[in-house]
Formats: sequence, structure tokens, C-alpha cells
Amino acid sequence: MSRRVDDFDVVAFDADDTLWESEDHFQAAEARFAELVEPYTPRGIDVLDALHAVERLDIASQGYGVKAFTLSMVRAAISMTNAEVPTAVIGQIVEIGASMLVAPVHLLDHVPEVLDRVGRETRLALVTKGDLVHQTRKVTTSGLEHHFVDVEIVLEKDPSTYERVLQRLGVSADRFCMIGNSVKSDVLPVLAIGGHAVHIPYHLTWELEIVDDHDDDVTELGSIADVPAWLGLD
Amino acid sequence: MSRRVDDFDVVAFDADDTLWESEDHFQAAEARFAELVEPYTPRGIDVLDALHAVERLDIASQGYGVKAFTLSMVRAAISMTNAEVPTAVIGQIVEIGASMLVAPVHLLDHVPEVLDRVGRETRLALVTKGDLVHQTRKVTTSGLEHHFVDVEIVLEKDPSTYERVLQRLGVSADRFCMIGNSVKSDVLPVLAIGGHAVHIPYHLTWELEIVDDHDDDVTELGSIADVPAWLGLD
Repeated sequence: MSRRVDDFDVVAFDADDTLWESEDHFQAAEARFAELVEPYTPRGIDVLDALHAVERLDIASQGYGVKAFTLSMVRAAISMTNAEVPTAVIGQIVEIGASMLVAPVHLLDHVPEVLDRVGRETRLALVTKGDLVHQTRKVTTSGLEHHFVDVEIVLEKDPSTYERVLQRLGVSADRFCMIGNSVKSDVLPVLAIGGHAVHIPYHLTWELEIVDDHDDDVTELGSIADVPAWLGLD
Repeated sequence: MSRRVDDFDVVAFDADDTLWESEDHFQAAEARFAELVEPYTPRGIDVLDALHAVERLDIASQGYGVKAFTLSMVRAAISMTNAEVPTAVIGQIVEIGASMLVAPVHLLDHVPEVLDRVGRETRLALVTKGDLVHQTRKVTTSGLEHHFVDVEIVLEKDPSTYERVLQRLGVSADRFCMIGNSVKSDVLPVLAIGGHAVHIPYHLTWELEIVDDHDDDVTELGSIADVPAWLGLD
């Protein structure tokens, strides 16, 4: 069902893989990790499976983002090679992470025009999880920051986080719409608190964002370019 | 000059080395790092100087906190030993960081009573910089979170950050008082925007928090236990 922009006091966007590329960088880093580590790994070990398992365990204490990912790569490389991976390779793994942190932002198609169009009609916010320094760097260097009345970099996108964000913004859930590429993080928790959400799938989904079955009726658009029309804007 | 609690709508506290120990953990980690790395380091290299230099360079892209510190330790160990440090030692360095992230919070003396006393008279906030997941973990596991109307984990404690925090809290600078152990991060930027600040020195100061000479007249208390009396409370 399409909506009108007047239905919302705040339209909030996710950042990674909604406004700019992110998962592409992680998957490229993983491919490079596999190339570097495989020569030192015993036969029969699935390098990426092992890496994902380490990542999944580390998230509780390390959180999301590039620094946590880099530390997980280092731990995984050491454990899956039984410390046979040379120090110089660990150095290369650490540098993969360091370059991700300073990589230029690559905006997805239509993003600036859509923010400009929707932002002329209602307040926009950005809600993203991950590394404070990295997400801040991307927001500020993207040239998009001025569109947003509020930028929230959060630890976890769960219902209670969204409730806190809405309180900060002074908006009620039924006047709030979240737009993003993750059903798990951008859609279901917002619906759970009585808000509105739009799913815009990205061609890659991080394994840990893949959602189990759910009963919610999720609004899905093919591209961020469809958002203005969905909101009844030309 | 002492104040009255009625002078302030919000009294905000720094966290690390104001409410709980932090720098002790970093210095213990550095000492352990030196022990581990020194055997592989050429004579004539000052291990801790080299580590601090790497940290200082990394902060721009990695930010503050334990994960950034851990990655700096790994990079420093590899570079200062010309990759001669064994992989197993890198593994031990990574585990130093991992244990810091899950170490129990050790509150400084008098903290709960002071928050309770002052919090009965005015709104309290917590403003801390560092790692989102680690700082959140410390706040929630400390048992102190309920004292604070707002917990702000920020990238950098500069005047513009404090302006944003004050706007969020809906408080004017002259009705805001910040209390913390760092003249550089907790006092000078708050005075710069017209706010009030109290310095409570900790027995250790991180090298990167040591401030150059300044002309501001800084209010200093010997202990957090002196805060209620400074605010005119019994």
C-alpha cells in the first residue's frame, strides 16, 4: 500500500547498503582473507565458514563494524591455522581492515536526489549501527549529512533502540517510517513498536542479517528511486 | 567558587576514570604488551614510545577505545619487530584486548552515593567517548544506568559535540555542568561553549589526554565525594 508523505513526521534511512555500498567491501575483504590464509590452513577446513563462526561469537563483545571484523579475521586466521599463518600475513589482514576504514564512500544510484526530494517535505533521520568512527566518517564525507536532522549510530537495531530514537526525535511510532535494506534490522523492529517501514533489498545480504521466517507483511520497493512515488511525490 | 545545585538543569559525568577505572587497564595491557614484544624487538627501540606513536596516528581513522587500541598494538608489534614477532604472540596481544572488553567494571570510591545524592536534586547525564559496544557494556553492567536521563557515547569531546548534546538535553550551556577527570575532554570544551565544568584528577592520565597550557580558570575537586558539598548539598 502506498502512503503519503504527510503520513510521517520523520522518514529515517539506514546507511550501509541503503545509501552507500558496504557489504561489497566486506565480501571483497573476505575473499582476500581466504586467499591469504588458505595456504596455511589444513585441508578440509572451510575458511569462510570458520571466519563467519568467529565473527558471530565475537559480536556480543566486539559489536558490529570494520574494527570488530578485522579483529575477528585475525583471531580466525590464527585459530584455523593453529598459529601457522606467518606474522606478515596477519599484517596484511590488519591492513585490509585499515583500508576499509578510510575507503571513499560509494553512493548508491539516485540517493542524493531522493533525499533532496523527500527532505523538502518532511524531516529525515539516519539510523545506522556499527563502528562510531567509521560510520561518522562515512556520513560526513558522503556530503549527505545536511539532509538529516538527526544521525543515530546505534549498537543494535532492536525495538528498544528504535523507541529511544523516536523519543529523541519527539515523534510517535505511527508517524515514523524507516527505510532500509535489512528486514531484520530496519523493518521488523520498527513494525514491532507500531512504526512503518520499507524494505529495499540490496543485491548482497550479510549472513548475520538474513532473517528467519516472519509473519509481518513487509512493504518492499525495488529501488530507493521508488521512494518519492511511494510517498505520493512526483 | 562553589555552586548550588539549583544553578544547573543537568549535571553530566564522564565515565572512564571518573566513575570507574579505565586507564589502569590500559597501562596494565601496555606493560604486558612490552613483555610480550620486547624479546623480538631490536635493541634501542623504546617499545612503549613506538606503541604510543602508532596509537596517535591510528586515532584519526580508528577512533578511541579498546578495539582501536588492540589493532594499534598488533600493528605496532609487527612494525617494530619487522614482522619477527611470532604469530602466537600476536594471538596473545589480541586476547589482551578481548579480555579488556569483557572485564568487570570496577567503580571508583563513593560513585554510587554521589550519583544518588546529586540525582535526587537535578537531572544527570553521562557523556563518554570511545567504543560503542564497550562503553554500553560498562554502563549497563555498572548498575548505574538508571541514574542518567541520557547516555551519550561520542566520537570526540569537542565544543561542537557538547553543543549537540546540550541541544538533545534541551539545556542551555550556562545551566550545564560537566564533571570529569580530563581537562582536555571534560573541562575546556565545555568552558568554551559557556558551560560549567569540574575537574577531578585521576592518579593516571592517558598520554593523549594531557593538555597543553591553557588560560582557563579550572575548578578542581580532590574526589567525586566532594561534589555534593560543592553543589551545596549535605
